[in-house]
Amino acid sequence: MDSNVVDTLIAPEGRLEVLSKSEVVQLLDSGKGGLYNMFRNCALAVLNCGSTIDDGKELLDRFQSFDINILQRERGIKLEIKGAPAIAFVDGKMIKGIHEHLFAVLRDIVFVNNEVTGNPKFDLSRSEGITDAVFHILRNANVLKPQLNPNLVVCWGGHSINRAEYNYSKEVGYQLGLRGLDICTGCGPGAMKGPMKGATIGHAKQRFTGGRYLGITEPGIIAAESPNPIVNDLVIMPDIEKRLEAFVRTGHGICVFPGGAGTAEEILYILGILLHPENADIPYPLIFTGPETAREYFVQINEFIGQTLGAEAQKRYKIIVDDPELVAQEMQEGMKQVREYRKSRSDAYYFNWALKIDEEFQRPFAPTHENMRNLSLHKNQPVHVLAANLRRAFSGVVAGNVKEEGIRIIEKYGHFEIHGDKEIMGPMDALLASFVAHSRMKLAGKAYTPCYRVIQ
Amino acid sequence: MDSNVVDTLIAPEGRLEVLSKSEVVQLLDSGKGGLYNMFRNCALAVLNCGSTIDDGKELLDRFQSFDINILQRERGIKLEIKGAPAIAFVDGKMIKGIHEHLFAVLRDIVFVNNEVTGNPKFDLSRSEGITDAVFHILRNANVLKPQLNPNLVVCWGGHSINRAEYNYSKEVGYQLGLRGLDICTGCGPGAMKGPMKGATIGHAKQRFTGGRYLGITEPGIIAAESPNPIVNDLVIMPDIEKRLEAFVRTGHGICVFPGGAGTAEEILYILGILLHPENADIPYPLIFTGPETAREYFVQINEFIGQTLGAEAQKRYKIIVDDPELVAQEMQEGMKQVREYRKSRSDAYYFNWALKIDEEFQRPFAPTHENMRNLSLHKNQPVHVLAANLRRAFSGVVAGNVKEEGIRIIEKYGHFEIHGDKEIMGPMDALLASFVAHSRMKLAGKAYTPCYRVIQ
Amino acid sequence: MDSNVVDTLIAPEGRLEVLSKSEVVQLLDSGKGGLYNMFRNCALAVLNCGSTIDDGKELLDRFQSFDINILQRERGIKLEIKGAPAIAFVDGKMIKGIHEHLFAVLRDIVFVNNEVTGNPKFDLSRSEGITDAVFHILRNANVLKPQLNPNLVVCWGGHSINRAEYNYSKEVGYQLGLRGLDICTGCGPGAMKGPMKGATIGHAKQRFTGGRYLGITEPGIIAAESPNPIVNDLVIMPDIEKRLEAFVRTGHGICVFPGGAGTAEEILYILGILLHPENADIPYPLIFTGPETAREYFVQINEFIGQTLGAEAQKRYKIIVDDPELVAQEMQEGMKQVREYRKSRSDAYYFNWALKIDEEFQRPFAPTHENMRNLSLHKNQPVHVLAANLRRAFSGVVAGNVKEEGIRIIEKYGHFEIHGDKEIMGPMDALLASFVAHSRMKLAGKAYTPCYRVIQ
Amino acid sequence: MDSNVVDTLIAPEGRLEVLSKSEVVQLLDSGKGGLYNMFRNCALAVLNCGSTIDDGKELLDRFQSFDINILQRERGIKLEIKGAPAIAFVDGKMIKGIHEHLFAVLRDIVFVNNEVTGNPKFDLSRSEGITDAVFHILRNANVLKPQLNPNLVVCWGGHSINRAEYNYSKEVGYQLGLRGLDICTGCGPGAMKGPMKGATIGHAKQRFTGGRYLGITEPGIIAAESPNPIVNDLVIMPDIEKRLEAFVRTGHGICVFPGGAGTAEEILYILGILLHPENADIPYPLIFTGPETAREYFVQINEFIGQTLGAEAQKRYKIIVDDPELVAQEMQEGMKQVREYRKSRSDAYYFNWALKIDEEFQRPFAPTHENMRNLSLHKNQPVHVLAANLRRAFSGVVAGNVKEEGIRIIEKYGHFEIHGDKEIMGPMDALLASFVAHSRMKLAGKAYTPCYRVIQ
Repeated sequence: MDSNVVDTLIAPEGRLEVLSKSEVVQLLDSGKGGLYNMFRNCALAVLNCGSTIDDGKELLDRFQSFDINILQRERGIKLEIKGAPAIAFVDGKMIKGIHEHLFAVLRDIVFVNNEVTGNPKFDLSRSEGITDAVFHILRNANVLKPQLNPNLVVCWGGHSINRAEYNYSKEVGYQLGLRGLDICTGCGPGAMKGPMKGATIGHAKQRFTGGRYLGITEPGIIAAESPNPIVNDLVIMPDIEKRLEAFVRTGHGICVFPGGAGTAEEILYILGILLHPENADIPYPLIFTGPETAREYFVQINEFIGQTLGAEAQKRYKIIVDDPELVAQEMQEGMKQVREYRKSRSDAYYFNWALKIDEEFQRPFAPTHENMRNLSLHKNQPVHVLAANLRRAFSGVVAGNVKEEGIRIIEKYGHFEIHGDKEIMGPMDALLASFVAHSRMKLAGKAYTPCYRVIQ
Repeated sequence: MDSNVVDTLIAPEGRLEVLSKSEVVQLLDSGKGGLYNMFRNCALAVLNCGSTIDDGKELLDRFQSFDINILQRERGIKLEIKGAPAIAFVDGKMIKGIHEHLFAVLRDIVFVNNEVTGNPKFDLSRSEGITDAVFHILRNANVLKPQLNPNLVVCWGGHSINRAEYNYSKEVGYQLGLRGLDICTGCGPGAMKGPMKGATIGHAKQRFTGGRYLGITEPGIIAAESPNPIVNDLVIMPDIEKRLEAFVRTGHGICVFPGGAGTAEEILYILGILLHPENADIPYPLIFTGPETAREYFVQINEFIGQTLGAEAQKRYKIIVDDPELVAQEMQEGMKQVREYRKSRSDAYYFNWALKIDEEFQRPFAPTHENMRNLSLHKNQPVHVLAANLRRAFSGVVAGNVKEEGIRIIEKYGHFEIHGDKEIMGPMDALLASFVAHSRMKLAGKAYTPCYRVIQ
Repeated sequence: MDSNVVDTLIAPEGRLEVLSKSEVVQLLDSGKGGLYNMFRNCALAVLNCGSTIDDGKELLDRFQSFDINILQRERGIKLEIKGAPAIAFVDGKMIKGIHEHLFAVLRDIVFVNNEVTGNPKFDLSRSEGITDAVFHILRNANVLKPQLNPNLVVCWGGHSINRAEYNYSKEVGYQLGLRGLDICTGCGPGAMKGPMKGATIGHAKQRFTGGRYLGITEPGIIAAESPNPIVNDLVIMPDIEKRLEAFVRTGHGICVFPGGAGTAEEILYILGILLHPENADIPYPLIFTGPETAREYFVQINEFIGQTLGAEAQKRYKIIVDDPELVAQEMQEGMKQVREYRKSRSDAYYFNWALKIDEEFQRPFAPTHENMRNLSLHKNQPVHVLAANLRRAFSGVVAGNVKEEGIRIIEKYGHFEIHGDKEIMGPMDALLASFVAHSRMKLAGKAYTPCYRVIQ
Repeated sequence: MDSNVVDTLIAPEGRLEVLSKSEVVQLLDSGKGGLYNMFRNCALAVLNCGSTIDDGKELLDRFQSFDINILQRERGIKLEIKGAPAIAFVDGKMIKGIHEHLFAVLRDIVFVNNEVTGNPKFDLSRSEGITDAVFHILRNANVLKPQLNPNLVVCWGGHSINRAEYNYSKEVGYQLGLRGLDICTGCGPGAMKGPMKGATIGHAKQRFTGGRYLGITEPGIIAAESPNPIVNDLVIMPDIEKRLEAFVRTGHGICVFPGGAGTAEEILYILGILLHPENADIPYPLIFTGPETAREYFVQINEFIGQTLGAEAQKRYKIIVDDPELVAQEMQEGMKQVREYRKSRSDAYYFNWALKIDEEFQRPFAPTHENMRNLSLHKNQPVHVLAANLRRAFSGVVAGNVKEEGIRIIEKYGHFEIHGDKEIMGPMDALLASFVAHSRMKLAGKAYTPCYRVIQ
């Protein structure tokens, strides 16, 4: 195992290297209220990039001796790292992209703790306060770029997709990149890496040296979906809900590739928002796409949405099979509409303030056995509220599949139980079953043991 | 008067143009707790740059119709400005340096209000908390540059100096600039402008495109000492004491040109700090300099220091008359010592954490008639505490001379009374009298009416 | 066919847009001595990038109506283009990389004609004069970068390789890119494109924004091997021999992937040079590499070299099968030796002046039927001269396969005849036959008709 | 004297550091046809910047031991310098601006010799050929910037002006700089330095980081008018006439400050061109300006022009006394007209091809005693030809005053004799006499001995 870990000392190069004395103290404090554990675990996740572990707990178990320390030097801080995964290094030197990610982790953890949590300026019990916090975290990460026209395409989809789907996502990224569009993803492998690689080549051919590859993650998922080093803007949001809000408020359109439960969660999230009556007029390009082999997948998703959320929901997206150029052209056309809409209302291009996000979608959902059991999955509620609850159900499944905490409680208490109306539980069960059947739950090569049971 | 004001609409170009909705609301709120008045007055001061008004109250009176508004646009905010001093414009277009300063004002007012004031992370009742706040404000203003070697020379001195002294300060700036040293001043005309102009030429000849001209000011003084547009990093600290702390913690050496009461305040401030026993070993280059015509001035200052603070204090500075090249060489030599000292202790180059600043120097001093009357000006106290009290006395005189609030209370209640031991009051009276005699109290051409009376 | 061509007007962005009046006149002169035809044909080749035509004549035939004109405008020249291949455009807008290539074509044609041809400063009848011309053309193209350490890896290999070999070349490029090495190729598809794509991703992960993708071509080959838009430095040398000299004098090491006759030509060229007694001590990393499926190919090449040039020649290269990381590590190690060698002798890093290139390798070889018939292919000559003659033989085969002029004369006069000693002709025939058998002569999917006959 | 010279070794930083072997050989060849002497003398002149020597011969005499050598290193050439004037250094390190100038000298001497002289592409016996050579030299020096709008103001005037005039020229430069206008001068002190210093401050306030300070000189004058280090684009043209052509074809307007014979030469040159019938419609802003103390000077110039060239000539310029802001506003207004004129005709902004410059103004004039004696100074010729001959007369006077060769022949053969019609010789004599009376012939503090005699 020794040969697989590396010790090193690195210095930052950007503007984040300036920490105050008290910030360093907090980061190194592994006691209650201290930030060390979160910092260490996120740092380890970042360093594990490219490995095939998609299991947060397994990662922590394997690199138990990993340690990270902060040193004050005359030119700012340095990070002293021990026992880091060798995969982050080339001939003993840390890959620069990963190097940057470590300091992004540092920046966001410090900022959230110092200037958001406990600051009375942010009332996190109210919707506006949460949105304000999301805005401040993104602004501090220098992600909000007022000079740019709308051009950021959020790419969602599974981290565990097959080769054909992966190549297809690269090709879509290439066509987006040729058109000057930037990419935002959730950071992991698969559909989150392909579009960035493709866009890198597209941008190179077009000499777009400022191409943005924005990764948005959170401490719970980062271990399972380690950021690809191509990501050149990384933000660690405090929780899933703020991460999702960051996606939909910074992105100008969304492209969904095939995936599993996490992808379904994301689809339900964006549909739930777009179905809110106040958002009816807001243009938001949303395209589901994949190669020929994924046609069946989208048929199932489309059916599930029709059966649970109805035809109105189906109008908010397009499905395009096996045509990367068309996807890029549609997305670019959508960007124009976004631009015109915002310009006509003097809405910011860089942050979608106008989008109404119901508190249902903002409040963190803890996937405990009790919360999963008590989800309201019936049609006797507004469709966007139903979408919120369905989103929570899938969120719980993702936690049980890949997140450290989720895996621990499943190991301890057994699978989650999900209750609801038959007309919803039926399609849901079918969809989840098909995910399992098509190996969309975990990285290839591992047998999947469901962490849930649908009870109709 | 109409022909002397201009209306305009400007957009920022940097990264500060991204404000949240609630930040805009606060800035535009002119009610209690709102920031509008402070923002408006600082903005007006910035726009008045280059005029010969050095009287905050006169400025506000003359441009009563001045108004500034914030508009949200798709690429971020814009500022709508009405009734601005024409001096800020060239052929109807605002000078770019002034344009940038307006947004620096915005940035610092928003940051201090949002992330410092009221944030429990900063305990402003303790010395460490105050220093932490100073650090955060400077960091947010992007003023702390970890990659640079120590090279920032703080230039202090009068805003109302004669032509020979002004040309001399330019020549010193030129010699500093040729050696790659950067300049930090308090922003106004005179000794605060000359070194920057000189350094600009020196930097141009050496092709230092990143030359820094840092101006540090505060809302009370900015109207009297409007930032010169050469200043390319402007910070508005919340009060005098934090401004002085910002000078001594970011600067690596100090050059004092001739001046009046404000300059004496600054000299007493830095000497009071350097005389603190804990700072005895810290290298801090401090040079008093001027042309031949200023020789007498420094003789008097030196005598005053000898009589009040003693010979030990006199050892912490050098006086160099009429030799700009020597000043620059000494300063560069001092920078090397600063560098070696900090490197040997892994102290940051960009912020002088190690310097002990007693709370006496950090606590805001309100120059009311009562506070001025109660100053402890006797030798029966540690020398650095006496320096602190002398500093306050001169601070009060500056307020009565040029600050809006100070002028108002002097108009209302008459001059300040300053009491103390004869052996201190004698030299002080003599020094102030010589300032008056040499027209060092106000801009040339105005008769000076003292705002104080020394009572022995 | 109309839908496959595009008309447009483009302006340059670099520093090459400034032409004198007489330069424009020459470029537009399609008469004798005028440059129009060469300019037009190279421009067409650049615009045809990405298509599957690898036949210069077919290209010219298909786009007969293509026309390019130069307009003088107040900000410099513009190019008016009619009937350009649609493949160069994305949604009607020319791909930026191709756009740049057009102006590189312009630059090099103008420079060679104006400042090299006919300028008595260059004595092209002597070896030194030819090298001087090569140097000037490269310097004018801004390709010689004195600040860089040796890091330019020339990648040679077939434009018509299979998918596995292509993916392998990408992986090698990726590993080279991760180590900060830059790529130089001959511009076409296949082994000339893969390493650049891989290096682009490697550079992106390492944040090397200045990654160089140098393409070196010449008017005869450009139509068959159109530059990939990733190429961000394109140079059009006047002929094959100067192109080859440019490769070996700017590159610091060479990586050879599987290929056909062109690749064999390149291998013989570099071996012929390295075998020159004066070059015996000069370090020059040379690696032949491919995936497992190419093992047999390199076995044959290695045998051919052993049989014709001998064991000494075999010592100048390494063969690495299926290990991209090792290739990159060996290449990086080789760079260090190059650096040390040149540093110890104050030799330039950016141009390998020290390498002796015999006039045999510099004099243009016209592949006429007569010249091909008269090649001296026997062992009764120094081994580096034999290498020169073998190089010419393969060069003729390439011309007959893909170059416009070569194809025309083969159509007219039938195949070339190649004579020589049995011990050389035998291995040569075997090698060429294996190229044909493995489809290494032309792009996949086309039947190959040999343009030569080996006569033993 | 030892303490006044410095030895050093410097490396270039730009893109000109790449010399071929033969270029280095030529530069170091001090034999016939070699370039060493010209290179050495120009280098010495550049290094002597800021000194008060304005006498080329004196300079060469004083620094006889000065030596410059070129070393080939792995990163390109280095210059080994011995016995350089100490004034070029700050604390032993060469001022960066001067450092750059040395390499500009190298670049232009190499280019002119290698690619212009002897290259049959330039027919220097014809007007078009000369213009083409001027164009190529400027393009090679990277001075022609196609992306810029017309904004380059040529500032002419004496190198020996008094303090008030110097300060005035700074103020004009400041006002030009505030308006984004760039400065071009002949490189020396006085009116050639003031505008650049002023513009530097104006540009700094407007954050124009790309401000251009273009200096155009030639080997004969550079020793007397050493380039100021603020000059950030320096070009050494081969002779006076090409230098003057470079001024009028790259500049977009001209501002003439008070001066002596050289300034008169420049005024006659531009008027002679603007009076050519083919240039009648071309807009060319031309302003004569100075402070109140220079009013008399311009009265005399204006009279001289009226008496010799007539009222038509007087219409091509404006005289503005003591109003820097108005000068800048007029110049900016003129730029707009230049822009519109060129745009309407698709004329280049960066090179004034349309301006007709008669061969009379292009042919080098050697100021020998014989040539001076034979000048045609009578009214029986077209007015622009008379201007050409008057220009030559003044050119000769400049040579006799400050150029090495001119001073030598005056020392040897006595003063020049200038013949002509009374109605021309009278005003000319008066004008020259007034230059002498007002110390406009040489740097202050030196007695002036006329090098000419006007014979009526």
